[in-house]
Amino acid sequence: MPPSPVHTDKQFEADLAHLREKLLLMGAKVEGMIVDAMRALVERDGASAKGVIARDEDVDRLEVEIDELALQILALRQPAASDLRFITLAMKIVTDLERIGDLATNIAERADELSGEPQLGPYVDIQREGSAVRTLLRDSLDAFVARDVRRAEEVRIRDKEVDALHAKLFREIQDLMKQSPDNVERATRLMFISKYLERVADHSCNVAEAVVFLVQGRDIRHTPKEPTSKG
Amino acid sequence: MPPSPVHTDKQFEADLAHLREKLLLMGAKVEGMIVDAMRALVERDGASAKGVIARDEDVDRLEVEIDELALQILALRQPAASDLRFITLAMKIVTDLERIGDLATNIAERADELSGEPQLGPYVDIQREGSAVRTLLRDSLDAFVARDVRRAEEVRIRDKEVDALHAKLFREIQDLMKQSPDNVERATRLMFISKYLERVADHSCNVAEAVVFLVQGRDIRHTPKEPTSKG
Repeated sequence: MPPSPVHTDKQFEADLAHLREKLLLMGAKVEGMIVDAMRALVERDGASAKGVIARDEDVDRLEVEIDELALQILALRQPAASDLRFITLAMKIVTDLERIGDLATNIAERADELSGEPQLGPYVDIQREGSAVRTLLRDSLDAFVARDVRRAEEVRIRDKEVDALHAKLFREIQDLMKQSPDNVERATRLMFISKYLERVADHSCNVAEAVVFLVQGRDIRHTPKEPTSKG
Repeated sequence: MPPSPVHTDKQFEADLAHLREKLLLMGAKVEGMIVDAMRALVERDGASAKGVIARDEDVDRLEVEIDELALQILALRQPAASDLRFITLAMKIVTDLERIGDLATNIAERADELSGEPQLGPYVDIQREGSAVRTLLRDSLDAFVARDVRRAEEVRIRDKEVDALHAKLFREIQDLMKQSPDNVERATRLMFISKYLERVADHSCNVAEAVVFLVQGRDIRHTPKEPTSKG
């Protein structure tokens, strides 16, 4: 049987490669924004924080471009099976990445505000949460590139560690609020940074779940976060 | 010229109608969850709050079913133009609705916790935010059903009112935190409820933006929230 014309079409392959590259570019951009927003927080560097905020425009533009490209490929080609899953997942993942860009922007906004105020506490645990989340995001993107189901499933399991770090930090920050009314505003900013990070981890899990669906056609979105026999 | 076979195919029309119905069902479900979670908060009714949490499973199942159906239609038919936009937007909107279900669940969790504690303040402003958000969500879904661009654009503009209500409430809740350490935990729960509501409004805006793209093919996601001459 001759190969299907759809799959030997060079333009089609080039379109898919282009889509993949743009997604990876967007992933790299939002990862960089998270890293730099957290660095701006720790280094109390308002100018760097504002720089992160300015970069969100690039991410927004990439979202629009990727959706346009995906829609164009769907309209002009007749992708099937794994290619169709890839294109529709690209349209899902782009939403997660755009939202991660927004969350990085929110972290940078709080970091900018906090940089003009006396530091509240040593920022040790929030840095730990930031590192864990950044690794999770990176691993979810790597799993996507490599179509690596095992790595994707690990991301989902490690999301629980981020949840635990967030819960611990949440209690610590509430204690700071109780200690003095003067702490309330700064503690609220820190509390939201921790929450934003926890949401970035959730979006990384969405990317990881997309990897499993892409490779195996299994929708694991509302299943328990456990390793499976297929993993 | 004879009509295109794709557009006269009764099965195709039935598939699209089925997709639309499932989306509307899901929209009605999450709207009901928001309304009931806020009622549980105000009436301090922990049992009702737990009932809302239990309903999130239905929403999750609908998300999976709608995505499956959309993917099936894309794979079996060759939808073009407005039909293709509708199907890919359905896959975007379903993510917003699923997230609204999660946020309603989070509100219900906090309402359940608060129902076991002495009431902090009169809940007037948070009810106001809840009503505004519910109306916004409802209007975004109605605009989607009616393909009503003007109504969709109004949703985006009215999101600013929700943001203002949220900002006002945020300051009030911080004041409660400053008044007494005993207020901190309950005030934190209220603060997050207000934040969750604000996020529901953002997801309603996403639905509204999808309506404009569906009808006019214009992507307004990262444009200013102003009425346009085309509105």
